[in-house]
Amino acid sequence: MTLILSNEEIESVLGMADCVEVLERLYRELADGRALVRQRSDIIVPGPEPGTVYGLKSMDGVSPAWEVGAVRINSDLLHWPVRNGFTRREKVPAAPGGRWVGLVLLFSSRTGEPLAILPDGVIQRMRVGGTGGLAVRHLAREDASVAAILGSGWQAGAALMGAHAVRPLREVRVYSPNPEHREAFAREWEEKLDLPVRSARSGREAVAGADIVLAATNALEPVFEGAWAEAGMHLGCVRQHELGEAVLRRAAVVAVNAHEGIPQHLMHPEVSQHAELSGGRGWTGVASDMVEGRPLLAEIVAGRGPRRTSPDEITVFLNNIGLGAQFAAVGAHVLERAHARGLGRELPTEWFTQDVHP
Amino acid sequence: MTLILSNEEIESVLGMADCVEVLERLYRELADGRALVRQRSDIIVPGPEPGTVYGLKSMDGVSPAWEVGAVRINSDLLHWPVRNGFTRREKVPAAPGGRWVGLVLLFSSRTGEPLAILPDGVIQRMRVGGTGGLAVRHLAREDASVAAILGSGWQAGAALMGAHAVRPLREVRVYSPNPEHREAFAREWEEKLDLPVRSARSGREAVAGADIVLAATNALEPVFEGAWAEAGMHLGCVRQHELGEAVLRRAAVVAVNAHEGIPQHLMHPEVSQHAELSGGRGWTGVASDMVEGRPLLAEIVAGRGPRRTSPDEITVFLNNIGLGAQFAAVGAHVLERAHARGLGRELPTEWFTQDVHP
Repeated sequence: MTLILSNEEIESVLGMADCVEVLERLYRELADGRALVRQRSDIIVPGPEPGTVYGLKSMDGVSPAWEVGAVRINSDLLHWPVRNGFTRREKVPAAPGGRWVGLVLLFSSRTGEPLAILPDGVIQRMRVGGTGGLAVRHLAREDASVAAILGSGWQAGAALMGAHAVRPLREVRVYSPNPEHREAFAREWEEKLDLPVRSARSGREAVAGADIVLAATNALEPVFEGAWAEAGMHLGCVRQHELGEAVLRRAAVVAVNAHEGIPQHLMHPEVSQHAELSGGRGWTGVASDMVEGRPLLAEIVAGRGPRRTSPDEITVFLNNIGLGAQFAAVGAHVLERAHARGLGRELPTEWFTQDVHP
Repeated sequence: MTLILSNEEIESVLGMADCVEVLERLYRELADGRALVRQRSDIIVPGPEPGTVYGLKSMDGVSPAWEVGAVRINSDLLHWPVRNGFTRREKVPAAPGGRWVGLVLLFSSRTGEPLAILPDGVIQRMRVGGTGGLAVRHLAREDASVAAILGSGWQAGAALMGAHAVRPLREVRVYSPNPEHREAFAREWEEKLDLPVRSARSGREAVAGADIVLAATNALEPVFEGAWAEAGMHLGCVRQHELGEAVLRRAAVVAVNAHEGIPQHLMHPEVSQHAELSGGRGWTGVASDMVEGRPLLAEIVAGRGPRRTSPDEITVFLNNIGLGAQFAAVGAHVLERAHARGLGRELPTEWFTQDVHP
């Protein structure tokens, strides 16, 4: 049977502590070249309305340890509104019912069969937060206990979960430009984690004295100023430009998730005008030269990269681009747990296989 | 609703004449850079048994004319048996029920929604045969009427359909090493096309005097000898090495389907021994330098490439690698016809969409 799960079902079986362990094992496979990743690609054509584009995005990966291959697909309408003075890249929920489209397909590397078709939302969130947590585990000070979160959205919560899974936090601060959003975030996570979570009135206030600073925003401009960096900090982000360049120059270690700083992108000739909407930085909104030559998190996890050598050093992890194999490993873990609990909708595998040699 | 179709349903709505017209329109879009293609990628890891490998293959494409994006995925166990003296690359039907796994997912570029999940077999066959037919239309002599088919399998039938759709054939010859196979092919297609189809005892006998020669085999060695080439012939193949290099040197035009001669491939360190099984040519079994710098079929279809300038010239089309956009355009056509006839199994689109911004 091929399993269909909802985001709610996935959330019910995927804890952050487990997610970090699954990723730790995967990153060792990646460092050895056993787990393999096909870089993300984006095809971009004009959307149905002026100022919108359609993007078909995919990435693949195989984890031999899990005996699973994954293809993650996003089929998105995008636009670039300005909110709170920041240009943001947003996905329009244009599918029936006002919904978004992101899928993870899982395949067995023993039989080839399609094991599951999953929405990508919860896995995406957890693998990003979990990867940030993996970097905190391997780069932050052992005694790090104060975390600052820049951003108050869905990924900001995952970033906090990732740090909380690997360091015994005693205090959390959050800043985002909208006071209601940051205060709601503080209330929500104070209750969830049973920790003091304080809403700060500025980014500077949030990060002052923090051991761990994690940015998780949709902003296309940096949200961290170089002068805010303090000795001993570990910083992480989900978009490589969020921290700005100044702190990278001061850091002892700047690790990246992949050397391909930007996805392979194929663009319709009429889309170039829309690309200007993302602050003139082109489709991806990022510069590729920020990650070239940097050590990979996988090398650091496998003990073959640079490490923090003193409590005063600044360390940074740029979670610059996703890896298809993250969906294979985390997806396989979800599937194992879902089967054990009898969750999901089973469809006949014959619907997704064939009796002809293609 | 998201539509699930079977290969039988797809076959019932996809005729070769229509398929060639759909591809003609797509190739004009491709020539203008409006239809876009993400090159095929293969991730290759060890399979469950010695001598087998697992391959996760994908390609993407968007056709703005059809307002559809496609991701085509193959999840295969492979081995390389020697049959009739030829090393072949074969997919093992290891999925439950002894089945193979190839999928085409279609998405709307207006809403992002998943429109359909289809098996790839029939569309794969028809788009390969149809692309060969498109090349026959634009490169073979106008009065070409005798076709030779090298190979007697599923793709050989599609190659014949492709030629038949664009030139009024009066005679067909077929050769493949197994007499039973070639005789069965001759009987089957003589009846289907109401044309004389003769089984030849050698490749040379099949091609002597033919106007159109189409190779459609799984052989990893050439099946056509350079000395067999005759003035005025058009030749096509589904694997770029099938015709050998000699005829390419004599040809006035050698068109290719894509300049990426081999897929992007990412290989587990233990797989290299299996790659030796494919005749020492590595994973893909082909050399990339055969296609570099050649004119694209899309340019020729759009009237911007070289053309046959005399009835004595030899022309060649190397259908060297598939294009994801073929699945978008042909898949969209199939979907339109299937909806009109009420075919298929409708699943709730909500199963494949989500209410979170991923």
